[in-house]
Amino acid sequence: MVTTSAEECRALLDDLDAIVWEADPRTIQFSFVSQKAERLLGYPVGRWLEEQDFWVNLIHPEDREWVVTTCAAAVRDIRDHTFDYRVVAADGRTVWMRDVVHVTGDAHGQATRLTGVMLDITA
Amino acid sequence: MVTTSAEECRALLDDLDAIVWEADPRTIQFSFVSQKAERLLGYPVGRWLEEQDFWVNLIHPEDREWVVTTCAAAVRDIRDHTFDYRVVAADGRTVWMRDVVHVTGDAHGQATRLTGVMLDITA
Repeated sequence: MVTTSAEECRALLDDLDAIVWEADPRTIQFSFVSQKAERLLGYPVGRWLEEQDFWVNLIHPEDREWVVTTCAAAVRDIRDHTFDYRVVAADGRTVWMRDVVHVTGDAHGQATRLTGVMLDITA
Repeated sequence: MVTTSAEECRALLDDLDAIVWEADPRTIQFSFVSQKAERLLGYPVGRWLEEQDFWVNLIHPEDREWVVTTCAAAVRDIRDHTFDYRVVAADGRTVWMRDVVHVTGDAHGQATRLTGVMLDITA
């Protein structure tokens, strides 16, 4: 993949044993998610992209409040962050995820982009 | 990034707070590595791609033998694997990495592709 086409790049993203995602920092709505999302958790990629609050609803109810609060604070401070939390798969399984988030900000201190890598750390 | 150009896809890969890589399963020579490799460890991306044995030499000497042996066995068995090991950055720092590797095999039981995500877990 030394010279990269869109297809090769996309194939690499979808091949990874990790979920790669991109989201709007204001709404936390996903604008991209890689195929591992569907393989690991069972929800079609289209739902990740189209449903408002998909991420919030994905989080295990017992972790939802602190995870959303932690993420909002990190976005406000333009701060990269890593956190481990539980999500609920389409078949009801609880899956422990490690989410490694990069926050990009502009010159006015506003977050402009969120990208992340989620790993299954259920063990 | 709902419709993805090569530039957008590449920008997403390079923006992540993780190293995404692709390598030849026979030689473990890298055919792709994302920019985080350079930001985190200080070696130019060109060295990752051009030097034979770059990965082997990157591993901390005390971890090198078991890491290389583990990887070779997983490639032989076409087995995804996650392992934590130390690498040595360009400035001499020791960095703990978690390497999450996906092995693709063909119908003859031969590994055809290795992809991975490396996270800094130095803490």
